[in-house]
Amino acid sequence: MYKKRIQYVQNYLKQEKIDFAFIQGKANLFYLTGFRCEPHERLVSLIVAPTAEPVLVAPHMERSLILAAGWQGDIIGYSDTDNPWEFITTYLHNNKVGTEKMAIEPSLLSYERSQALLRLGENTLLQNIEETLLHSRLIKSQEEKAILQEAAKRADFGVEVGVSAIKAGRTEIEIIAMIEFELKKKGVTEMSFNTLVLTGANSANPHGKPGMNEVKPGDFVLFDLGVVYEGYCSDITRTVAFDHVSDKQQEIYATVLKAQLQAIESSVIGESLGQIDEAARSVITDAGYGDYFPHRIGHGLGTEVHEWPSLNATNTMQLQEGMVYTIEPGIYVPHVGGVRIEDDIFVEKDGPKCLTNYPKELQIIK
Amino acid sequence: MYKKRIQYVQNYLKQEKIDFAFIQGKANLFYLTGFRCEPHERLVSLIVAPTAEPVLVAPHMERSLILAAGWQGDIIGYSDTDNPWEFITTYLHNNKVGTEKMAIEPSLLSYERSQALLRLGENTLLQNIEETLLHSRLIKSQEEKAILQEAAKRADFGVEVGVSAIKAGRTEIEIIAMIEFELKKKGVTEMSFNTLVLTGANSANPHGKPGMNEVKPGDFVLFDLGVVYEGYCSDITRTVAFDHVSDKQQEIYATVLKAQLQAIESSVIGESLGQIDEAARSVITDAGYGDYFPHRIGHGLGTEVHEWPSLNATNTMQLQEGMVYTIEPGIYVPHVGGVRIEDDIFVEKDGPKCLTNYPKELQIIK
Repeated sequence: MYKKRIQYVQNYLKQEKIDFAFIQGKANLFYLTGFRCEPHERLVSLIVAPTAEPVLVAPHMERSLILAAGWQGDIIGYSDTDNPWEFITTYLHNNKVGTEKMAIEPSLLSYERSQALLRLGENTLLQNIEETLLHSRLIKSQEEKAILQEAAKRADFGVEVGVSAIKAGRTEIEIIAMIEFELKKKGVTEMSFNTLVLTGANSANPHGKPGMNEVKPGDFVLFDLGVVYEGYCSDITRTVAFDHVSDKQQEIYATVLKAQLQAIESSVIGESLGQIDEAARSVITDAGYGDYFPHRIGHGLGTEVHEWPSLNATNTMQLQEGMVYTIEPGIYVPHVGGVRIEDDIFVEKDGPKCLTNYPKELQIIK
Repeated sequence: MYKKRIQYVQNYLKQEKIDFAFIQGKANLFYLTGFRCEPHERLVSLIVAPTAEPVLVAPHMERSLILAAGWQGDIIGYSDTDNPWEFITTYLHNNKVGTEKMAIEPSLLSYERSQALLRLGENTLLQNIEETLLHSRLIKSQEEKAILQEAAKRADFGVEVGVSAIKAGRTEIEIIAMIEFELKKKGVTEMSFNTLVLTGANSANPHGKPGMNEVKPGDFVLFDLGVVYEGYCSDITRTVAFDHVSDKQQEIYATVLKAQLQAIESSVIGESLGQIDEAARSVITDAGYGDYFPHRIGHGLGTEVHEWPSLNATNTMQLQEGMVYTIEPGIYVPHVGGVRIEDDIFVEKDGPKCLTNYPKELQIIK
């Protein structure tokens, strides 16, 4: 699998007459090598040339984890006192790899490292390989779908735990702790992002921060969470009410749910991503809440929780089989509360398939 | 406080005749504005010109959190369909801020954004402000020390919970879940990095990954964790044994502890950072374990968990009052296990002060 993915890159390099690609985005590295890491400030990079053997440059101490991850190619290890760029220079020289045209990930590579690459030769040039890598990751295989489904199942379970944990006086933080505790016990080692539990007025922040707010009767309680499973992410949002709801809250909830269902329904091959946003936005705008839906309808999902493409109003890209993304409309009314409902969608030949499956009818937790 | 910190930057810009600084590193942003964020791919940046009012560029939906964080300056908000660079151009024009010389964080700014900056004018030039920002963060005030101490206290507590959770058959993941559960209940909303609990052979990976390994009699159990408290990080490592230890394990533990104490003792004003590494390394090398200590002795600590400066053998920088860093020697013997002991050190006038205080004598948990 990794060999095939690297060949995809090598073919691109040959075609574009690029000497080598310098790849260090976490998700791209994982996709091409099976190795997922948190290198902090240390350099971890995959060097792929059209014909030479690819090599992974990484701190010595990562070696055993790299091997455990299944990487079978060469490794250049370095210690904290080494300058890895010297080893890179030697590798390029020994393998007769040129330095005129190098491919990089411009949004992920630091300016500093771009300058180190440019100094590798004279008349050097950097070319963008990011789109190619994102393209290679766009369409998910059946194998990837199965993994994403497992990730989604665990997200469903996380919401289930959270909803059961709701009671008067319990804080957002406590509920998060209970969710993550149960997920960890099931073997989840990494969340795809910091879990959100937001209650009452705090749910009206589209990206509010959980804190010591206590659940009160009449609150919306919003859960936004996901897990990383075998390198792939899930991302679910559900909102429930505690004890009772006002008519206004019911109207908001019903509007978001209708918008979400409409956006899912519009997820058919050939539609544009912008149309999915529009499908939801029109429902919300017609209901008079247009100003309270300040974000895009969703984002791609895969080895990253926010992955290309972005599902915003202006995106004309067309849906294809195997694309995976979130659909997550929301309405956030200051002082009243917010509702967001989010599912992970896999586009199949005959229509959208929800990977996340926690129920969506308004629950009033007693 | 933020005003003063921004003035520090402005003074540097005046002195260097730089038109403006474009600051977007998470820790630097927090240090200068009080706002800590996870912008994912979205642009969040502080623009500081020598005389104009500084402005924070951020997605609209972050506005309420920015205000809650205490930022009193201007904000340029943008939505997912806007191009924030157009707003930046307008701001620069309206405030008569030039674009000839711009200061950036080269290791944190992406190549892509560096090119967007260079396109803001003709004959543009980028200058490195990172060192200046790191310098401004290097010496911690008494106020910062108090916060770091609170962060360290919570790390101590995390280890305490973890040690109490040890029993035969319990997995690394379960113990992590229990630690984070108790920390969350105490109001900890963010760990400074993914908590490590490594048992038996897995402890021999200096940066091993926790999994479903179960604690067995005779195992070393290694804890490496930290919390973020009011934007500042702690980082502690402790290693205990379960049920019994071999002579070899006792020797390894005693060697690491001796090395760690020696390194702490050498933490006096005027010594070099390299000498701290040497103080520990010589103990470990003399005991015959030099090859099993593959990393530097420590790293700076503050608004980032790995902060400048690096405490490695070649660093000649001298210790100053108010510096904060970790001291964390380790010995990792494949198949036998690993021991690391780490404390957070605040350099005071009359010597080192440990912010972390969990006991360090070898504990054999029955």
